[in-house]
Amino acid sequence: MNRIINDPDLVVEDAIEGYVVAHPEFFEKTDNSRVLKYSGSEKKGKVGIITGGGSGHEPAFLGYVGKNMVDAVAIGEIFSSPTAGAFLDAMKAADSGAGVACLYGNYAGDNMNVKMAIKKATAAGITVKTVVANDDVASAPASEKEKRRGVAGEILMWKIGGAAAAEGYDLDGVIAAAQKAINNCRSIGVGLSSCTIPAVGKPNFHIEKGTMELGIGHHGEPGIKVVPIETAKEMAETMLHPIMEEGLFEPGSEVVVLVSGLGATPVMELYIYYAEVERLLKAKNVKIHRCYVGNYFTSLEMMGVTLSVMKLDAELKKLIDIPARSLGLVQE
Amino acid sequence: MNRIINDPDLVVEDAIEGYVVAHPEFFEKTDNSRVLKYSGSEKKGKVGIITGGGSGHEPAFLGYVGKNMVDAVAIGEIFSSPTAGAFLDAMKAADSGAGVACLYGNYAGDNMNVKMAIKKATAAGITVKTVVANDDVASAPASEKEKRRGVAGEILMWKIGGAAAAEGYDLDGVIAAAQKAINNCRSIGVGLSSCTIPAVGKPNFHIEKGTMELGIGHHGEPGIKVVPIETAKEMAETMLHPIMEEGLFEPGSEVVVLVSGLGATPVMELYIYYAEVERLLKAKNVKIHRCYVGNYFTSLEMMGVTLSVMKLDAELKKLIDIPARSLGLVQE
Repeated sequence: MNRIINDPDLVVEDAIEGYVVAHPEFFEKTDNSRVLKYSGSEKKGKVGIITGGGSGHEPAFLGYVGKNMVDAVAIGEIFSSPTAGAFLDAMKAADSGAGVACLYGNYAGDNMNVKMAIKKATAAGITVKTVVANDDVASAPASEKEKRRGVAGEILMWKIGGAAAAEGYDLDGVIAAAQKAINNCRSIGVGLSSCTIPAVGKPNFHIEKGTMELGIGHHGEPGIKVVPIETAKEMAETMLHPIMEEGLFEPGSEVVVLVSGLGATPVMELYIYYAEVERLLKAKNVKIHRCYVGNYFTSLEMMGVTLSVMKLDAELKKLIDIPARSLGLVQE
Repeated sequence: MNRIINDPDLVVEDAIEGYVVAHPEFFEKTDNSRVLKYSGSEKKGKVGIITGGGSGHEPAFLGYVGKNMVDAVAIGEIFSSPTAGAFLDAMKAADSGAGVACLYGNYAGDNMNVKMAIKKATAAGITVKTVVANDDVASAPASEKEKRRGVAGEILMWKIGGAAAAEGYDLDGVIAAAQKAINNCRSIGVGLSSCTIPAVGKPNFHIEKGTMELGIGHHGEPGIKVVPIETAKEMAETMLHPIMEEGLFEPGSEVVVLVSGLGATPVMELYIYYAEVERLLKAKNVKIHRCYVGNYFTSLEMMGVTLSVMKLDAELKKLIDIPARSLGLVQE
């Protein structure tokens, strides 16, 4: 795999350098080289929103640091959890006295490190509460929802949590809104090709030409099944089916749809796919209030697409519509 | 190549359907299925900005339709010029009495079709003037600048032209500003891997593992040379060298830098590369007033990066800073 890098072991450091120098309007360095904070933060007494995760998913996670979004981010190695120290320093960077909402994805490393960080933050007098995203329906059955991974639905959780904090919600209110966002969200992905971690130098896994893997994870975690590649229309049906089976999106409901490429998927294909999703939801009398289509949560240069659907109530609808500004999401 | 499509011969139609249904805030259909116009257009008497080009470069070209940007776009097949009829209908869609600035790239098919469209537009009473982008330094020597291709610098030309029109410039003024933008802009690309046109089904060209093609075009047009793959730092030097050799970017000058991935390049690599470009320009005492880093002008799922540098004067600086809103570029 030909790449645009310097040292394969320093891609995260080198990329952070680029983000900071390109976007002083979003990023401010902290004493921890793996923690960036929002440079435009002004509001004392606002609940701080933090997240963190492995690199290679750009614009996630750091691309959602910004106005009415995430206040500080802990940055891990490619596809690896940030350290407990990075989570702790992100909590410290985001706290302005009203506590910190740590909104992250359900992965073993992140769970462990967040837990350790909270212990130390609490000792330092910072109140931290968490929401653990588990929107990926392919990663465990509904009866074991606590085992499900967090995927692109995390972006909607950050959007809702960030908007709630901006609106002056207290910590419990922010946590409740973010938790509702992820409770109301279901996601699934398909992988069409693999990706290569620079320091490893060979593909992370393998997908045969002419096949696709339904339910693949953001790091190539095995999906539900490998099937012959489908048309965009069939893919939309195949992916929407397990989402609708959750029983959440009844006729008449209003939703947000997020379609994300996994890195190498041409933008035009994401829109071909989105048109099919829109048709299917319309036929089920589910109204799309707002959509996001693009490379929002990637896996290096993987080919594929993820679909996330979040059901709205009056509160979520108000919060999703609040303007936001970050590298990965600009909304006026 | 595994893809997310329905019929390989209908990818452009299917994608347009997706763009329109996802983004009514930007796109309005016209009687010509290959022409979209800006749905938010209000201002009568404003110079209309149009462009057009082949598909597969998304978000270019249609992604730059929007507020203070492009008013109508002619859409071609993958990597092919729109028809003369589509250019003509875009001109008609964008005209509100003050004439139309057609800002497009220097390709044989586009040149021919725009020329034919202008003849018919003129006969229909619409004044059309053109700027032909030729920012790619790799495509011909400086002595034959009129042979050079237009590449990602076109985005800066649209930004400047769109801002000038929004500011109330007349047609000659818009044309002069857009022409200055492209005259002051130099670009070059490197390709690290090929791409596959859906209807063709096999790679468009070939790049050996461990090599890169300097000066490659947006459709895989042969570059200056194939060399062993370099580090991001070396690539930045190799690409900046011919740009600086043009003698335009003297010490003390202020510039806009646009770094675009070609489709499959992970975002983190674009920022690793950008950090190197920034360091090199700083060392040459060239000040970056504004930067754009992302997948702004792609070639399906090609791996690679393009670098565009535009020198600013007081007018261009004012125009580049005017807010804009489109799918591919949001600036507040």
